[in-house]
Amino acid sequence: MVYLDNSASTYYKPLSVKWAVIKSLFTLTANPGRSGHKASLRCGEAVFDVRQTLASTFNTSADRVVFTSGCTEALNLALRGSAKKKGHIITTCFEHNSVLRTLEYMRAREDIDYTVVTPCSENGIITTAELDKAKKSNTYMLVINHISNVIGVKQNIFALGKWAKENGILFVVDGAQSAGHESIDMKANNINMLALAGHKGLYGLQGVGALLIDDTTALKAIKFGGTGTYSESLIQPKDIPEGLESGTLPTPAIISLGAGCKYAYKNIDKHSFREQILTKFLLDELNKRDKIIVYTPDNTYSGVVAFNIKDKTASEVADELNEKGFAVRSGLQCAPLVHKYLGTLDTGGVVRASLGRKNTKTQIIKFLNAIDEIISNV
Amino acid sequence: MVYLDNSASTYYKPLSVKWAVIKSLFTLTANPGRSGHKASLRCGEAVFDVRQTLASTFNTSADRVVFTSGCTEALNLALRGSAKKKGHIITTCFEHNSVLRTLEYMRAREDIDYTVVTPCSENGIITTAELDKAKKSNTYMLVINHISNVIGVKQNIFALGKWAKENGILFVVDGAQSAGHESIDMKANNINMLALAGHKGLYGLQGVGALLIDDTTALKAIKFGGTGTYSESLIQPKDIPEGLESGTLPTPAIISLGAGCKYAYKNIDKHSFREQILTKFLLDELNKRDKIIVYTPDNTYSGVVAFNIKDKTASEVADELNEKGFAVRSGLQCAPLVHKYLGTLDTGGVVRASLGRKNTKTQIIKFLNAIDEIISNV
Repeated sequence: MVYLDNSASTYYKPLSVKWAVIKSLFTLTANPGRSGHKASLRCGEAVFDVRQTLASTFNTSADRVVFTSGCTEALNLALRGSAKKKGHIITTCFEHNSVLRTLEYMRAREDIDYTVVTPCSENGIITTAELDKAKKSNTYMLVINHISNVIGVKQNIFALGKWAKENGILFVVDGAQSAGHESIDMKANNINMLALAGHKGLYGLQGVGALLIDDTTALKAIKFGGTGTYSESLIQPKDIPEGLESGTLPTPAIISLGAGCKYAYKNIDKHSFREQILTKFLLDELNKRDKIIVYTPDNTYSGVVAFNIKDKTASEVADELNEKGFAVRSGLQCAPLVHKYLGTLDTGGVVRASLGRKNTKTQIIKFLNAIDEIISNV
Repeated sequence: MVYLDNSASTYYKPLSVKWAVIKSLFTLTANPGRSGHKASLRCGEAVFDVRQTLASTFNTSADRVVFTSGCTEALNLALRGSAKKKGHIITTCFEHNSVLRTLEYMRAREDIDYTVVTPCSENGIITTAELDKAKKSNTYMLVINHISNVIGVKQNIFALGKWAKENGILFVVDGAQSAGHESIDMKANNINMLALAGHKGLYGLQGVGALLIDDTTALKAIKFGGTGTYSESLIQPKDIPEGLESGTLPTPAIISLGAGCKYAYKNIDKHSFREQILTKFLLDELNKRDKIIVYTPDNTYSGVVAFNIKDKTASEVADELNEKGFAVRSGLQCAPLVHKYLGTLDTGGVVRASLGRKNTKTQIIKFLNAIDEIISNV
């Protein structure tokens, strides 16, 4: 199988991740942060090591790393847990349903409204001028998808973060598709909250994510329970990260995330460059074919390529590719408003090929040959 | 190390669980329920197998098994996601903070009130007469801890379920400490929702749990995001289980839970009997020692034993035991109202020894010898 669905989950986990998980099955099965015995303390220390790894990788403090069950819970926490939760939020058409459905829920039940910004230009880049137009007097948060999981458009988080800071607005970044693919510096980009998925570009197991918070942003819990702190109190503790991490932490998955993050960020610039080259090759080749509609804009080399074959639905193409041994994802990729923007919402979405560290040029050539076969049979 | 903290997390995972996880690192790393390719479908099938395992073990339907990040999230979902969410809830002093803190949050912000029932008798058993007293005209839910994680008291879920059904009240059971230790039949006990922890008596990894629902109970999501269904809609889908399982499922942990559940329930009656015998031995021996205060009631043999040594705090005893190579948990065990009931809330809680499948009589004898050494030095 040639696996090109790395935006859903990276399939080939590095040896260091596998080995870390296997070790954890024998040594890290106690409950971190609960009991005082050696087995529990060892778990707590191992979990803390991963906090430090994430904190140093993305430039925040270790005690501002909140582990979650995934990026979805991290985004729910950022949006619904924000202490400022009242007023207007700006977001974009590139958001995943983990943001959009959460905002829609908040708008229906809470004192929240939101505006979806759709970029004017074809390159998909949101400009600060567009944000200026969307801004209201009570706007308190900007939440953006750093790299689109559908078409790979990368937003300029430096410019958007600067704008947010100048306007006194919280800046929340969904890093599900960018973390592990390129360096993200929370402080340099004025990011208040960065949501991460463990099992995509960070090469951990499914079942873990994190919300990284800067030193000033206040958050309230959205899940209530035992925290190992202030156990006598029936009121959820306010301490961070414990108060936001009710219940037993997913230790083996956290360990995998730590190992995966180290793997992803070792020589990140080199790997990121290689991914860009490979994406450019795929994109250029697809663009050469008349029967293919490419949705990923020119010069967008983030490892995510969206396309359709004329006179075929995306799911037909994905099924045929699957039969030929290629794993891609068709449909809406849980991000409906991108498809409204592309005009593919009511036509079955797009075929998405998403690259990972293990993909090679030879695989891409084979993939293009398979595409050509499908085209020739239309 | 003699590990006696199995109520926090079982430490020695069976070979079948370890092996299932190791295999999953190589074959089940795609995203279940999202894409249509073989790798994703294989994950989806493996996850569905675990739904079936849990459903048949606890007697409900496979499509009423909702996977969560743990028992905490399962209880949050049962309480906050209940479609009936308005009125009065009855609970007990034995509840974990995952219930109590959630109820307290709901009381502060929603149209909810709750009553905590404390048993009159010394055996800790809640009677239906006590529930009758607590019941109000708008009581819509009874939530109880099946086996106390502090003193091991086991509630009579058959009698309580019958009472709840007769009174038209939803019956929610926190099975964190009972699942894997004994058979639980949802239908026979009229349980509407059963919350499970994956990493305790069910011998899975940390980072997974489940809420099992009967065929009639309606639930709404408490976490919003991608579900792989109705992706075009910004409104969270209402389908169960998908609509309640936003985000990528923790596949390896789910696989571990499936293997662990099979392990736990193979010859469950034999193992349950063995655990009772071992608990009885430990309890009887502790009761013989004048310097020990035992909090677990007589004839309570659920694998959980709470005690203190006179003139020593629980944490001192736990620390000394740790030094001698025994892992126990001291303090409040995230269940403050049990300690109010026991009179140990302001005195540092209790020492809890909790047994698992791997504990032996020899270990318990060694443990008692260590206790005697500590007593002799008081």
